[in-house]
Amino acid sequence: MQALHWNGTHLKLDLSYPPPKADKVMALIRVRLAGICSTDLQIFKGYMGFQGVPGHEFVGEVKEGPSELVGKRVVGEINFACGLCSYCAQGLGRHCPARKVMGILGADGSFAEYVAVPVANLHLVPDGVADEEAVFTEPLAAAFEILEQVKVRPMDDILILGDGKLGLLCAQVLYLTGARVTLLGKHENKIGLMKKLGIRAVKLADWRASLFDIVVDATGSTPGLELALASVRPRGTLVMKSTLADQHALSLAPLVINEVTVVGSRCGPFPPALAALAQKRLMVGPLIDRIYPLAEGVKAVGHAARPGALKVLLEA
Amino acid sequence: MQALHWNGTHLKLDLSYPPPKADKVMALIRVRLAGICSTDLQIFKGYMGFQGVPGHEFVGEVKEGPSELVGKRVVGEINFACGLCSYCAQGLGRHCPARKVMGILGADGSFAEYVAVPVANLHLVPDGVADEEAVFTEPLAAAFEILEQVKVRPMDDILILGDGKLGLLCAQVLYLTGARVTLLGKHENKIGLMKKLGIRAVKLADWRASLFDIVVDATGSTPGLELALASVRPRGTLVMKSTLADQHALSLAPLVINEVTVVGSRCGPFPPALAALAQKRLMVGPLIDRIYPLAEGVKAVGHAARPGALKVLLEA
Repeated sequence: MQALHWNGTHLKLDLSYPPPKADKVMALIRVRLAGICSTDLQIFKGYMGFQGVPGHEFVGEVKEGPSELVGKRVVGEINFACGLCSYCAQGLGRHCPARKVMGILGADGSFAEYVAVPVANLHLVPDGVADEEAVFTEPLAAAFEILEQVKVRPMDDILILGDGKLGLLCAQVLYLTGARVTLLGKHENKIGLMKKLGIRAVKLADWRASLFDIVVDATGSTPGLELALASVRPRGTLVMKSTLADQHALSLAPLVINEVTVVGSRCGPFPPALAALAQKRLMVGPLIDRIYPLAEGVKAVGHAARPGALKVLLEA
Repeated sequence: MQALHWNGTHLKLDLSYPPPKADKVMALIRVRLAGICSTDLQIFKGYMGFQGVPGHEFVGEVKEGPSELVGKRVVGEINFACGLCSYCAQGLGRHCPARKVMGILGADGSFAEYVAVPVANLHLVPDGVADEEAVFTEPLAAAFEILEQVKVRPMDDILILGDGKLGLLCAQVLYLTGARVTLLGKHENKIGLMKKLGIRAVKLADWRASLFDIVVDATGSTPGLELALASVRPRGTLVMKSTLADQHALSLAPLVINEVTVVGSRCGPFPPALAALAQKRLMVGPLIDRIYPLAEGVKAVGHAARPGALKVLLEA
């Protein structure tokens, strides 16, 4: 099959990559669309030391697996848990120490014609949700993870730092709670998108320092994290949403003095993300920058890495 | 009056420092004992840019103030709040943005014969609590602050990193919850003290890495913080208990990947600390290293700065 392959130093298109196989645990999925995430770009800088087929965002059709699923459109959770350990027993399979992670750790991913995913990880895509929407389920679930971890109150003043793809999704998800949401970004087009939805969005150049109850850092940068720390009120909450391979050098004294709570936040639950898409409570279509055929995947990754790029998709 | 004075570069004994005055808000306290804290040692390295009389731990006797308090033994909370702002209205005077902090920010402290403290900040010392115990109320309250911020469950496995004075108090306070507490330290004598109380205590040289539900970093060092991050389980909680003037350089990616919650923790409530002392549920006497007369305060600070020193007190 066609697949993009990362060998640790180069990404290239392989025209005869061995396709994965279904078994008792794994279903075989024909990928329809796959999304390129900032984590993929980090992987191409050495993050996680991954080698293989990258990609962990997809929507596809079940080719082999339980008969009730074959032919159905699905999305899939990316953490392949053991199902046996104490984390799995507590419903924390996303933290299973023996887990593989699709396209990130020990398992081939979705930048290919076919991907194998545990049946337990699959979720049916509701009929009213287009492929171009469903492919956002994984990053949208990561945004919903914030609501699993942090109690948001109706009067909370929330700041999202960063107008990358995840920042735009986090802003929309937090806006659903009825709280006051401000997005701080760099790009006119993305700020315009947020304003259309009624979300307060401000350009960094126009920013005036103030304090928020909850700050979400989705910048993936040390200056972003510093601004986040400076923007959270005493006893407030800072949600760290981006993984960075680099070291941060910063003073953590304000965190102690102001008794800030910092919450690391990664993958989230798929059902609320799919429900929000089905109920048209969020806007993801305008976040698509361009769709490339899988064969042009290397070029697509280059596009995704451009500053200010929105979501780049691969059509397999 | 006699007072120790820090002018930003030197600490010296002043034999005729102007004594503070009582007014409608402030009571005048004759200091009996004052404790030297690691924060004082940080101040002598430039922390907070403080100048004046340092010291924020004390037990004393009210000389001027409301008639029902005069002649009584008291301890005092160190954050002098405005009482008017939204933080004060929420009972968060310890985070009042207009606050002064005794011996740390804008208010003279307790390394003197007399100190002025807002009447609202005073707490009577129960009869059964000796001066040598009551002087620990402030740091003990800081340890109790953890219980205000973090839900501790009976089956939690808790690690305290650091056998400094605050670490030894945190270990004892958390042990009160019935959770399993391990203290990791460097000094044989302190580890021995903890073991006598039934608390598991391990020397750093004998440490074998493992994961804990809750980790309290009371080391005040970057390597300590790194070990803390490496010792907290996925979805666990890391309590940062020490303020450091320095920058930390470390990778925060594990915090995101493991969805760790980091809780900055500073000053705490006095009533549970006094109650625990009155009920003899904690041991503070053996934490006293030596008591110096105030006139030998400079020497006493030198003693407190020695590696492994326990609590050094000043008798005023």
